[in-house]
Amino acid sequence: MTSYNAQTTDVSADETGTLIAASKVEGTNVYNRQGESLGSIYDVMIDKRSGQVAYAVMSFGGFLGMGESYHPLPWSVLDYDTAQGGYVIDLDKDTLTGAPSYAARENPRWNEDYTRSIDEYYGAPPYRGLGL
Amino acid sequence: MTSYNAQTTDVSADETGTLIAASKVEGTNVYNRQGESLGSIYDVMIDKRSGQVAYAVMSFGGFLGMGESYHPLPWSVLDYDTAQGGYVIDLDKDTLTGAPSYAARENPRWNEDYTRSIDEYYGAPPYRGLGL
Repeated sequence: MTSYNAQTTDVSADETGTLIAASKVEGTNVYNRQGESLGSIYDVMIDKRSGQVAYAVMSFGGFLGMGESYHPLPWSVLDYDTAQGGYVIDLDKDTLTGAPSYAARENPRWNEDYTRSIDEYYGAPPYRGLGL
Repeated sequence: MTSYNAQTTDVSADETGTLIAASKVEGTNVYNRQGESLGSIYDVMIDKRSGQVAYAVMSFGGFLGMGESYHPLPWSVLDYDTAQGGYVIDLDKDTLTGAPSYAARENPRWNEDYTRSIDEYYGAPPYRGLGL
């Protein structure tokens, strides 16, 4: 992956110094500060009006023998690390097991209660897009 | 599609009143003010640091016998219209033919010159993510 500031001659349509295609964000690995792989980005939730990415949904496959589950993460708690070529979050695996999540077959309601539960779990600023 | 403000009991994981999954933005139709279909969203380009969607890349298939081409559109010029279930841009088809675009096989460099050419064509505020 390209670093944030480098202007290379091999810039693809999918990624530049500062822009990345959503289709490329999807599938990007997520690591914790210890370098352990926690999962990969499955989707991102965009605020329709502002165009701001509010949450990344991390796929967390087969951990502890469970099926794939999805963990919504506030975008603000993800740092992109060019060395690892992935996102880094300050979170250990045990903490992740207690985090808001849903199974692949579930359809959570992304209402005020749900987004607040996510924001509070990760200590992120509250999402303001739901008329709060 | 759900309207911006409605809180329904049938909110899926993909879309709520204000949040929409990137995977669902992709494939959404784009219309002009006359209701003509111009294409559909192929991808969105996200600013890595801010998480702001800067551009939507519209797929514009088979127009005038040419193969599929991609038109980057500043996110700010797209309005979501719940009645049509798609994005609306104030643009006629003739204007679109002169807009910045690239073929499916091409990999444009999303550098300062390129983003400026897009912003200026559509009269959008300049993208500030490339160190301008």
